[in-house]
Amino acid sequence: MATIAVVGAGLIGASWTALLTWKGYDVAVYDPSPTASGRLDAVTAKAWSALRQIEGAPATPGARRLCATVAEAVDGADLVIEAGPEALEAKQALIAEIDAACAEEVPIASSTTAHKPSDLQKGARRNPARVIVAHPFNPPHLIPLVEIVPSPATAPDVTDRVRAFFDGIGKTTILVKREATGHIANRLAAALYREAVHLVAEGIASVEDVDKAVTAGPGLRWSVMGPHMLYHLGGGAGGYRGYLDHLGPAQERRWADLGAPSLTPEVKDALVDGVRAEADGRTLSELENERDAALIALLKARG
Amino acid sequence: MATIAVVGAGLIGASWTALLTWKGYDVAVYDPSPTASGRLDAVTAKAWSALRQIEGAPATPGARRLCATVAEAVDGADLVIEAGPEALEAKQALIAEIDAACAEEVPIASSTTAHKPSDLQKGARRNPARVIVAHPFNPPHLIPLVEIVPSPATAPDVTDRVRAFFDGIGKTTILVKREATGHIANRLAAALYREAVHLVAEGIASVEDVDKAVTAGPGLRWSVMGPHMLYHLGGGAGGYRGYLDHLGPAQERRWADLGAPSLTPEVKDALVDGVRAEADGRTLSELENERDAALIALLKARG
Repeated sequence: MATIAVVGAGLIGASWTALLTWKGYDVAVYDPSPTASGRLDAVTAKAWSALRQIEGAPATPGARRLCATVAEAVDGADLVIEAGPEALEAKQALIAEIDAACAEEVPIASSTTAHKPSDLQKGARRNPARVIVAHPFNPPHLIPLVEIVPSPATAPDVTDRVRAFFDGIGKTTILVKREATGHIANRLAAALYREAVHLVAEGIASVEDVDKAVTAGPGLRWSVMGPHMLYHLGGGAGGYRGYLDHLGPAQERRWADLGAPSLTPEVKDALVDGVRAEADGRTLSELENERDAALIALLKARG
Repeated sequence: MATIAVVGAGLIGASWTALLTWKGYDVAVYDPSPTASGRLDAVTAKAWSALRQIEGAPATPGARRLCATVAEAVDGADLVIEAGPEALEAKQALIAEIDAACAEEVPIASSTTAHKPSDLQKGARRNPARVIVAHPFNPPHLIPLVEIVPSPATAPDVTDRVRAFFDGIGKTTILVKREATGHIANRLAAALYREAVHLVAEGIASVEDVDKAVTAGPGLRWSVMGPHMLYHLGGGAGGYRGYLDHLGPAQERRWADLGAPSLTPEVKDALVDGVRAEADGRTLSELENERDAALIALLKARG
């Protein structure tokens, strides 16, 4: 695969474009917005600066071409990344247009967070078997994870080629074996977040202390190893079996005690007030810069 | 506070001892086990090597003294850290012994994971108001988090002094405002783990891919910022309010779809088999070294 089409140049599409040109791919972009070109420039400048800090100089960057139509962007592409608006009908319409215009064997990888590939395939009348989800984490040029989600109707060969492509550009891919709302990582994030909301809603801890509990505690370890492996190492000489036999009952007791909050107006107020206290005067843009600088330092340390 | 008593020198107590001597405190340790001295030596060597990598050379290390009785260890101490066996009756008995032997104003901070301070206070007939939980994350010499959990009967002055002590040795303390099973961080970890088990139990993803989803995705960000602040930055110009108004409903839909697994024998087998595949021949000790080296690199990068 040498030429990639990116359809939709919002934050995700623009970040993909920046990463792919950095990695030496020629990228044909379609986005109907009059501000797409400026956004691509801005996101590319920021992303390349981050990538330079992490990886050093790029080999030979690829070329970016902003196209006037979907058909022009996908013409000659070896892979199409769909990164349009998140509404299902909009995605289906876009995929229909891509499917009609581009060569029949070319995979269409959607960046969707919310939708299942089997729903997206309804847009592709010509070759639904080439539609798959390849869901990145924001921003895709920094966060390694890409969730590969085929539907039962996705051709195995498409799954293999798309996964190999993202592996090849240095992403960490995982395979979602069965479609699920939120794929995998956002389900895990939602589970953590539900309890993070519960603890504030019930007055057990402040927003700031819940956030600190994560970053100074288990979140540190989760950037190093996942929960299963960590408990394998928490079981003494007996490993994961020992952990489950001895501490599994304590986990089940904790599970039974977890909260199930609702985002009522009162809870939302408590969350917003708590984040305001935690931000302590720092603007969104200052906080974003802190987050990105810390992520870059971390990715550099991981090598 | 210049002299600290550590009662119980298992992994947690030995790690506290190593950290405190590194920080220049004299530490009086009590542990009835004949292997305590060797364990203290081994844990100290490992911990000091890690701390040297993160912080450089120590100022002037404190002295360690292994005592024959609880009374000897707590005599003259400014703070007692209770790190005995986790069973409630054992902790209550130990706290009774500490409470009877040491000066009445000295705080007793328990490292308990599972128990509430109000239950531990039942062991302290003389001065229950000085009993508090100060729960570290394993290993305490590396992980910054200490959860400070007073009961309603804990003296506010004890809470303040204990929190200031742990802040002063560079830990990140949070205040648990109301006692809860698992305090805060282990509740958050249990929430994530429940879904991590569900995804494997339902065949949605392999153990290895669930772990990768965390370390290559949200886990990376959780070592940098907590979930509340991350969503504040995920709401565009509207901040957390904008996030909750626009994406709150999607979170609530995900919450409704999260799993509630049980650790049945079949699920345990799937978890153990999955971790074996993920370990791919690496021994527990090799994996532990990988975890610790990565944690040290990360803590160094955070500065």
